[in-house]
Amino acid sequence: MSSKPLDYENLNENVKKCQYAVRGELYLRASQLQKEGKKIIFTNVGNPHALGQKPLTFPRQVIALCQAPFLLDDPNVGQLFPADAIAKAKHYLSLNSGGLGAYSDSRGIPGVRKEIADFIERRDGYPSDPELIFLTDGASKGIMQILHTIIRGPNDGVLVPVPQYPLYSATISLYGGSLVPYYLEETADWGLDINDLRQSIEQARQNGITVRAMVIINPGNPTGQCLSEQNLRQIIQFCYEENLVLLGDEVYQQNIYQDEHPFISARKVLFDMGPPVSKELQLVSFHTVSKGYWGECGQRGGYFEMTNIPPKSVEEIYKVASISLSPNVPAQIFLGLLANPPKPGDISYEQFARESKGILESLRRRAHIMTDGFNSCKNVVCNFTEGESFLMFSYSIRRAMYSFPQIQLPPRAIDAAKKLEKAPDVFYCLKLLEATGISTVPGSGFGQKEGVFHLRTTILPAEEEMPSIMASFKKFNDEFMARYE
Amino acid sequence: MSSKPLDYENLNENVKKCQYAVRGELYLRASQLQKEGKKIIFTNVGNPHALGQKPLTFPRQVIALCQAPFLLDDPNVGQLFPADAIAKAKHYLSLNSGGLGAYSDSRGIPGVRKEIADFIERRDGYPSDPELIFLTDGASKGIMQILHTIIRGPNDGVLVPVPQYPLYSATISLYGGSLVPYYLEETADWGLDINDLRQSIEQARQNGITVRAMVIINPGNPTGQCLSEQNLRQIIQFCYEENLVLLGDEVYQQNIYQDEHPFISARKVLFDMGPPVSKELQLVSFHTVSKGYWGECGQRGGYFEMTNIPPKSVEEIYKVASISLSPNVPAQIFLGLLANPPKPGDISYEQFARESKGILESLRRRAHIMTDGFNSCKNVVCNFTEGESFLMFSYSIRRAMYSFPQIQLPPRAIDAAKKLEKAPDVFYCLKLLEATGISTVPGSGFGQKEGVFHLRTTILPAEEEMPSIMASFKKFNDEFMARYE
Repeated sequence: MSSKPLDYENLNENVKKCQYAVRGELYLRASQLQKEGKKIIFTNVGNPHALGQKPLTFPRQVIALCQAPFLLDDPNVGQLFPADAIAKAKHYLSLNSGGLGAYSDSRGIPGVRKEIADFIERRDGYPSDPELIFLTDGASKGIMQILHTIIRGPNDGVLVPVPQYPLYSATISLYGGSLVPYYLEETADWGLDINDLRQSIEQARQNGITVRAMVIINPGNPTGQCLSEQNLRQIIQFCYEENLVLLGDEVYQQNIYQDEHPFISARKVLFDMGPPVSKELQLVSFHTVSKGYWGECGQRGGYFEMTNIPPKSVEEIYKVASISLSPNVPAQIFLGLLANPPKPGDISYEQFARESKGILESLRRRAHIMTDGFNSCKNVVCNFTEGESFLMFSYSIRRAMYSFPQIQLPPRAIDAAKKLEKAPDVFYCLKLLEATGISTVPGSGFGQKEGVFHLRTTILPAEEEMPSIMASFKKFNDEFMARYE
Repeated sequence: MSSKPLDYENLNENVKKCQYAVRGELYLRASQLQKEGKKIIFTNVGNPHALGQKPLTFPRQVIALCQAPFLLDDPNVGQLFPADAIAKAKHYLSLNSGGLGAYSDSRGIPGVRKEIADFIERRDGYPSDPELIFLTDGASKGIMQILHTIIRGPNDGVLVPVPQYPLYSATISLYGGSLVPYYLEETADWGLDINDLRQSIEQARQNGITVRAMVIINPGNPTGQCLSEQNLRQIIQFCYEENLVLLGDEVYQQNIYQDEHPFISARKVLFDMGPPVSKELQLVSFHTVSKGYWGECGQRGGYFEMTNIPPKSVEEIYKVASISLSPNVPAQIFLGLLANPPKPGDISYEQFARESKGILESLRRRAHIMTDGFNSCKNVVCNFTEGESFLMFSYSIRRAMYSFPQIQLPPRAIDAAKKLEKAPDVFYCLKLLEATGISTVPGSGFGQKEGVFHLRTTILPAEEEMPSIMASFKKFNDEFMARYE
């Protein structure tokens, strides 16, 4: 018996084809170095708690009480928990018969979906139907489910921004579809040109691809751009004309720490546009507790909301969600709390507001330290050092949790990489990792224009460690550039 | 623009094809009746907490502290939590940098995987490698991932027991493979005949199917049988000879409340058999915190362990797990606690032992009430009323959390069902639901021999409600039989 079913050569080809750079070669190497005792600064994933961000207290109090409902009967409970957390815990326990240990409905707890619908209505000014909101184990799982529902075979295409979050490329490979790239323009603050989009779709069609959906990541990952209302209108009109489902990845909507360019949801713009578009365009929007000032990545809580999806299709999506029974219930409570946080006047309001503001302000300060650090480095292209361009960069970085500097690699570095059969940015990032312990993601993992190189790093390391991290980056980079120039 | 990408007719055909009876027509109807104010007894899903089973106290104390780590510094914490729960919480928090809010490694927290490996070693007497244990959001998600890795197209087949847990049929459809049924023998305590198995595989091959894997559910769902050591040896030898991956769904391994027929893992038997089989056969085994006396379904915690899977394939499985970043971290702690519960001498040991014993004993009593109830009903076939057969039945029912009685439907009932275009057992179960509020799953959802009908119910309703539930079942059944005979 030579070759067995789970031997590499016999695996599902789609499984083998997919790539996931966020935890790819760089991450594996970093994990290995960590095992060998090297101090690693993991900036490859937006995982704020892992780098020292403290959880918001109030949601954790509520969830702790939900996990230990016997505490609610304990006369000493008031010494450890405020009254509003106790009341909230009772509220959420009343919404799922059997509490956190019981499967909920496969779409999530109806009462929590109602709270999310109210949150969406407050945000957009249009009512939302809880029956069209499905809770998931993190937003990724929901995105994967919707893509699986859409992709029928290799000729089904999905428009994905480049640079993109590699969840999309990986999932499209995994389900055997075709990724149709559209490029974001670095020199225009990573904006989106509708003419380029038309070109992408035309070219895909010439290659026999039926383009069925378009992904937008707003605010952007890794680029940090917020789409303007006008840009969103163009996108929606485009999807309407081209008969595409619009997938709105809006997981960074609560990472905005400035007022000039607010986040606007695709859904709000769609409804603002009115019929026929608002009645016709199929839209699925995604959100999560992993990002924003919550950063509760490990809880794995997300949701998607469907607009203009026919009931029969919603039923199919429900059926598939049912196969794995229910999303984890604790994270559903986090989603309820995200939708319905403490309000002015509540006992815990001040602490909650202080903590969330503190996190956003620290992120902004860290973004500045990082921007200045990159700006001081040789061949780290800073279109952004002054004037408008600088504003763009620091502005971008204020809107998500990533920085995406361009690295101009000298030809000798590119040659050296080729000799090792590595992409040039992978080569650079590996050297960076080995010299400094800083674990980043090479830009090629997100998609790159030919000959252009970036790296993505989060801005999440602890504020007090940031200056030394950037000094260590600069030392490595400038030596690297000197060596290969 | 007539037909849009997410309209029913344009969805992925595999999505449309799959069926999931546990939350199918019966469940949807039950949910609707509940909305209309009818009292529903949900026995369709093994969801013990939803029907009143209390969570084990100690794990919940640990997890509550992990969710609210600031409590660990509070001088009053000792008034609400025992010292060993506090120590365990500190232990688990030390294993994942950033605690429950941080993504773990995509395979799960290394320290927890080590605890599970130790648990497996104690259970089987053979060491287990933590690097080959992956934690998942419930066992279902792991099973789905492994099946997706195996299935390459419609000609790839997976042997699945009939009756089966419909996760398997649904997932195989969803990933576009072929289900190859093998029948369990009701009159032989749902045992498995190797000759039948050979026939199944031969027939599949004649139809052009490459059979690549075989699923066993041990202890069985819905049947409750425990495979004997001898039967496991035959199965392993069969898979070895036929070059199949063996998938061991062992999620009910802690639902055993008798000593005569202990659960034996496929892995232990495999290693007992020695080389070449023990070095060659590819095995993936699954376990969960949702079943046993834990019943922590809502937490969504499971794991799979791989044996004889080559490193390159393990890497691929790791890569795909990485796309959704990490399983939820709170449930990982539950898995650690399941693997490493309080030991004699620990402060919380006595309470933990008392609670778990109490749950298992109550389940046994409930199984008896249910058996007696079914036995008293007209046309509810009880091979099991006396002697050996009775022992078999009560013994079956003692090993999982389900009862699977056969219902002999009169020809007139079958005709009435046909007129409504319903399967006869669906017709019966719908009538039962509407008359009594008891929500079961028709046997056809698990696979049935032609002309044989069952229903599956859990034995989980609260003990004090059980007599009235069975009385209400009997009243409905006997009237139904009188009407259609």
